[in-house]
Amino acid sequence: MTLMKDAKAGLTEDLEKIAKMEGVDPEKLRRSVAEGRVVVPLNPIHAPRLVGIGSGLRVKINVNIGTSPDHIDQEEELEKTKIAIEFGADTIMDLSIGGDIDQIRRAILKTIDVPLGTVPIYQAGLEVAKTTNGAVVDMTEDHIFNAIEKHAKDGVDFMTVHCGVTKESVERLKRQGRVTDVVSRGGSFLMAWILHNDKENPLFANFDHLLDLARKYDFTLSLGDGFRPGCIADATDRPQIQELILLGELVDRARNADVQVMVEGPGHIPLHQIQTNVQIQKTTCHDAPFYVLGPLVTDVAPGYDHIVGAIGGALAAYYGADFLCYVTPSEHLALPTLDDVREGTIASKIAAHVADITHEIDLGQDLAVSKARKNLDWETQFKNVLDPDKAQRYRTRRMSTEDGVCSMCGRLCAIKMVKQYLDDDKPMRGKDTE
Amino acid sequence: MTLMKDAKAGLTEDLEKIAKMEGVDPEKLRRSVAEGRVVVPLNPIHAPRLVGIGSGLRVKINVNIGTSPDHIDQEEELEKTKIAIEFGADTIMDLSIGGDIDQIRRAILKTIDVPLGTVPIYQAGLEVAKTTNGAVVDMTEDHIFNAIEKHAKDGVDFMTVHCGVTKESVERLKRQGRVTDVVSRGGSFLMAWILHNDKENPLFANFDHLLDLARKYDFTLSLGDGFRPGCIADATDRPQIQELILLGELVDRARNADVQVMVEGPGHIPLHQIQTNVQIQKTTCHDAPFYVLGPLVTDVAPGYDHIVGAIGGALAAYYGADFLCYVTPSEHLALPTLDDVREGTIASKIAAHVADITHEIDLGQDLAVSKARKNLDWETQFKNVLDPDKAQRYRTRRMSTEDGVCSMCGRLCAIKMVKQYLDDDKPMRGKDTE
Repeated sequence: MTLMKDAKAGLTEDLEKIAKMEGVDPEKLRRSVAEGRVVVPLNPIHAPRLVGIGSGLRVKINVNIGTSPDHIDQEEELEKTKIAIEFGADTIMDLSIGGDIDQIRRAILKTIDVPLGTVPIYQAGLEVAKTTNGAVVDMTEDHIFNAIEKHAKDGVDFMTVHCGVTKESVERLKRQGRVTDVVSRGGSFLMAWILHNDKENPLFANFDHLLDLARKYDFTLSLGDGFRPGCIADATDRPQIQELILLGELVDRARNADVQVMVEGPGHIPLHQIQTNVQIQKTTCHDAPFYVLGPLVTDVAPGYDHIVGAIGGALAAYYGADFLCYVTPSEHLALPTLDDVREGTIASKIAAHVADITHEIDLGQDLAVSKARKNLDWETQFKNVLDPDKAQRYRTRRMSTEDGVCSMCGRLCAIKMVKQYLDDDKPMRGKDTE
Repeated sequence: MTLMKDAKAGLTEDLEKIAKMEGVDPEKLRRSVAEGRVVVPLNPIHAPRLVGIGSGLRVKINVNIGTSPDHIDQEEELEKTKIAIEFGADTIMDLSIGGDIDQIRRAILKTIDVPLGTVPIYQAGLEVAKTTNGAVVDMTEDHIFNAIEKHAKDGVDFMTVHCGVTKESVERLKRQGRVTDVVSRGGSFLMAWILHNDKENPLFANFDHLLDLARKYDFTLSLGDGFRPGCIADATDRPQIQELILLGELVDRARNADVQVMVEGPGHIPLHQIQTNVQIQKTTCHDAPFYVLGPLVTDVAPGYDHIVGAIGGALAAYYGADFLCYVTPSEHLALPTLDDVREGTIASKIAAHVADITHEIDLGQDLAVSKARKNLDWETQFKNVLDPDKAQRYRTRRMSTEDGVCSMCGRLCAIKMVKQYLDDDKPMRGKDTE
């Protein structure tokens, strides 16, 4: 049995709980899970908290953490997961490629209660490349599928698999003449592998075997976009859409096999192409949950890509993207620090919330803040904002000598002045105003 | 003569220069200025650099600075203008309400070469309120118009005038039952004044006199939105749209008097109402340049309102807003610091640039960064990004031991791996990969 098969059979306790958390009709949610418009990444070995991702639900956010060959510190990565979850991460992905990857992944799984995602191809490629004179392209099919099964046995809840990097899409990529070619790490592994070995991508050629594993361990597939555009100039081009078409066909096959599946998307996309990107994913992939990275709507703001990603993410989620992967200020520059993780998580959370508002979800929090603002009730404001500590720190850094107001307008606070006329009907006089 | 009257008569040297800077047809630009779809705020006494704002041109950004009663430091405000202009501010507004306002304004005008805007009603209200037992509502018409003329004589290039806060719109506001009533400082002054004195807003009642002053000194009017919504729940409501209709009629009158005019807009607006807000401003105000504050697309993120404003601003500008007023991380909490000004300016610049990309303006910068990224050419990247110092600082904070790449993926850089296959056709082997 898988969670999807269960949902096809009837309402379950877990689905009822999710429906309650999301404020949606349980039967409608059950149908969405059964038909694949909603996924619930949940490997029974890990058994994380229930997180529904997809149509009609709150927009969810993912936070990537993980070591690099240049920076290996397990404790720091664990601390990152804590910060991310504190500020609203719905899931974590461990993208570690430095140090003892197995140990790090297992430590994270033990620590976090949210679903964990991984990209097993990293480990498969790395382990082969580590051997004497080895290279990523020397991976065998066994290396790839063994890594996937190892992650599944550890309890990983969802895995990115770059099944759409195929001989066909590689040819399209070569003919395209891109500015930045391939920027997906997994995509680059598989494209190199296909070109070097002149063979089809094992994740595509043996997709049925992948489905067997996913069904056996009940993890969710996240179909990676190895050919996502790496810059504005490459956005929405033929290799990107070719890969999406291939992924759409695999979505159908996964659903028929009772395997939950979502689809990953760009990447670098100018603002006016975001709606198109969401629509074409939804049509070609039969409304599979759409998991986007950013999207980043300009290339010129390294150091501020969390803001760039929040702009793109808010708009993508408004148009129907279901799941936003955060971007940190250090994107394109360095492995993120703890501060970067916090800034990135909050920026992504803002984007998700902004889209929820447009879908008339979670309006209460904004109203609570606004009413408190009107009443100059700072305590209630701080209780309802995304980062109470920062808000309080900013307010107290420069306090007003006047009660209730902030130091921006001080005694000339518009809210206070209007209150006196609409509510009290008498003006501030003399010293009160200077 | 005014700049607008000149443009009605024929092409001028200044308009040719602007057309060249913007890469647009000079005659088309001339018509846009003559018909009011583009404004060039330029008081001949100040004679700032040429900045065109409106249809078909690059999106411009404004940075607010200024003292508050609680924090008065002229040097800091001057430093803010420097930082703002360094990071791309096209105009500055001095909103000072603390200390010697005249002196601060004059110092700023002497320092900056970009157009300066002010809100003279602040000074008018303050000076009356400072007198024994005085209150803002004791302002006379003379106080108001004298303040405007003083600013004009100093060389202020554009002025916010809250002409749409009228007896009619105040009644509409009262009937609306808003959550946050009035959050515009100038709007609150004038609403209080109307209610206290039971008289019409002098800026509305004597609009022809205002036009006389604007024509005499050739400053640009920025019609303020005193009833802009102060929270998501109040967005796009009747008082807001009522005020906009009144402003639209005043736009026609200003143009007939050869006075340049733009229209200010919200404020707090959920993402899905931004298109509507831009469209209704453009229709009711006959395509007058639209100057928006944010818009802020959620109320729950104080401390991060520069990100919230960048989301709203990018989308507003994509739909046709011409001029973005920045928002800093300290919005709703405190008077901004120097750091806040920098963060706010860059966030706003990102929003403007993101919209320019959608209008096929300024694509070259993104392409230059992308090509450099592909070539792992960091120097060229840093030359073309919005904040080279921050980007460099982030990169060097955690360097990779590997040449060319960054510490995020280190030796497993996707770009490097793909380069080897597409360009060099040989894999990294052995120690190169670990």
